Amino acid sequence: MLGVVSGLERDRFLRACRLQPVDRTPVWFMRQAGRYLPEYRDLRGERDILEACRSPELAVELTLQPLRRMDLDAAILFSDIMVPLEAIGLDVRIAPDVGPVVANPIRSPADLARLRPIEPEADVAHVLEAVRLLRKELTVPLIGFGGGPFTLASYLVEGRPSRHHERTKALMHGDPGTWRRLMEALGELVLAHLRAQVSAGAQALQLFDSWAGALDPTDYERSVLPTTRALFDGLQDLGVPVIHFGVETGELLETMRRAGGDVIGVDWRVPLDRAWERVGPDRAIQGNLDPAVCLAPWKAVRAKALEVLDRAGGRAGHVFNLGHGVLPQTPVGTLQRLVDLVHETTVRERT
Amino acid sequence: MLGVVSGLERDRFLRACRLQPVDRTPVWFMRQAGRYLPEYRDLRGERDILEACRSPELAVELTLQPLRRMDLDAAILFSDIMVPLEAIGLDVRIAPDVGPVVANPIRSPADLARLRPIEPEADVAHVLEAVRLLRKELTVPLIGFGGGPFTLASYLVEGRPSRHHERTKALMHGDPGTWRRLMEALGELVLAHLRAQVSAGAQALQLFDSWAGALDPTDYERSVLPTTRALFDGLQDLGVPVIHFGVETGELLETMRRAGGDVIGVDWRVPLDRAWERVGPDRAIQGNLDPAVCLAPWKAVRAKALEVLDRAGGRAGHVFNLGHGVLPQTPVGTLQRLVDLVHETTVRERT
Repeated sequence: MLGVVSGLERDRFLRACRLQPVDRTPVWFMRQAGRYLPEYRDLRGERDILEACRSPELAVELTLQPLRRMDLDAAILFSDIMVPLEAIGLDVRIAPDVGPVVANPIRSPADLARLRPIEPEADVAHVLEAVRLLRKELTVPLIGFGGGPFTLASYLVEGRPSRHHERTKALMHGDPGTWRRLMEALGELVLAHLRAQVSAGAQALQLFDSWAGALDPTDYERSVLPTTRALFDGLQDLGVPVIHFGVETGELLETMRRAGGDVIGVDWRVPLDRAWERVGPDRAIQGNLDPAVCLAPWKAVRAKALEVLDRAGGRAGHVFNLGHGVLPQTPVGTLQRLVDLVHETTVRERT
Repeated sequence: MLGVVSGLERDRFLRACRLQPVDRTPVWFMRQAGRYLPEYRDLRGERDILEACRSPELAVELTLQPLRRMDLDAAILFSDIMVPLEAIGLDVRIAPDVGPVVANPIRSPADLARLRPIEPEADVAHVLEAVRLLRKELTVPLIGFGGGPFTLASYLVEGRPSRHHERTKALMHGDPGTWRRLMEALGELVLAHLRAQVSAGAQALQLFDSWAGALDPTDYERSVLPTTRALFDGLQDLGVPVIHFGVETGELLETMRRAGGDVIGVDWRVPLDRAWERVGPDRAIQGNLDPAVCLAPWKAVRAKALEVLDRAGGRAGHVFNLGHGVLPQTPVGTLQRLVDLVHETTVRERT
């Protein structure tokens, strides 16, 4: 259907990230390698996610599963944002129905000593091996990823997923020096981990600063942006597009844009056209169908998806995605139809 | 300090709600009658919140506790948004560390039959008695309240607090007829409950549509606004100010404004001045210090509170509050200092 370009059968995802014209709007889903797939549940079984990540063969297979089901335009490595933290020796597990749990939270200046620098080829060799193996299999681009500094800091400080991030914010406001050192350590860790993924073959990256939207714009700018900007600056020379994502970020978009990212990923709360205005025409945009909508009958999903495409207005630089990860109860058939709908609705001549 | 006006020692809260000049910016806190107070924990003990609500004497005492500690400009009735739902016979309890749990969720057209109309004088006599008793004690205005239709619908459909509101949204999108009837039933229930509170003596009302911000503006407008507008219209003749509150509502403010409310309550994600622009100069605004900030040292709390006051710019129509309820770990002393800070910083001549 498409010619082989830069070693890929299909490069519309990378082209859209770079604001270049595409033959169809590309589509992938956050958590497309996930529990909504019966073959994922079968294969991962009762294993902790972090344990599954330690097996390159398993990570490869879990990454590939959704691509066998749907005509997705990108693969995303099966991994977890907590992987590099576990790799440097923190006691982390992903508790079922809970999320990341950290046995000894980071709350004092002394705790920072436990955040040693990462040596990717030694510490996350299994991740890099999975990336290398995947590149041999894939005909669509592979997205590597990492956690945003605020999001990782929240898991480390709270010790578990938090609705209010109260200890994190108390540290941020109460001890700015420790906060800055924590953020810098996390920024450097994530930077090294992302760079290693690209060296191993990842063709794009996504930074999941999922919970940054819990901050007001002033706090984000003062306490997060410097680290995030340094992180994006440190990726620049790699020449791969980077997606900058968070939920509830409507008020932060202008600031996130300044922090960095070729593509800004947005949730469904902010209409895509409004988000794109805030992000600016020199950035691509990713999103933003409400994942909960995918549990409704197809007719309703279709209408909401067309609304998203309509707001994108056929402009170059839209990567279709959900506004957050696929929910476990999502019918596989709905996502399959969604991929086809996006492709069929957006057919255009490549200019 | 102030003359007695309309039976109250102090009416600056009501004046601010009506955009009238005040001598100081009024301040109260959502969940000011709450677990952060040792005397609250002592008095409520292990009782379910709904059980505590059934005792007028207990509700009165819990309502008054924070007023003995701080110079608050309004009292809010100790109650819960689930009270009227329990009162019409639904099996509801407030599970510790979880929130409202509904034994038999509402998910089908047949389930709607369980939502019978409320007869406040019979069904929530204890609530109205608490309001009457409180009016004899209070020298500041008493705020009555109810849950917004989307928020109540989410608890009823999910059966418990939900991060993604997936079943609720699936019903909303998948069966709009049932959804509309559910919303209308809830709207009428809340309207009757709020009107009864005013008849019993409440001098202002707040509608907590706390989770409406989980919707995109299109869905909110189509599936929530009609019910909410009817609710606000049905309160108009009472002549009491009504506050319309939700979190994560940055993108909805213009639509919420059209739904109704003399005062729009906003969380901390949207800077107060930006929120007020969206809400328009003919509405008052309530908010919006991040409750998590109150766990930081006083110096940081003070700086963030002054930022809020600065954004309000001394304009008539600002009611100082947190952007969401007081967190249980909040030091009492911080809230006490916060009340004084707001009052001292905003002293002005009453014009």
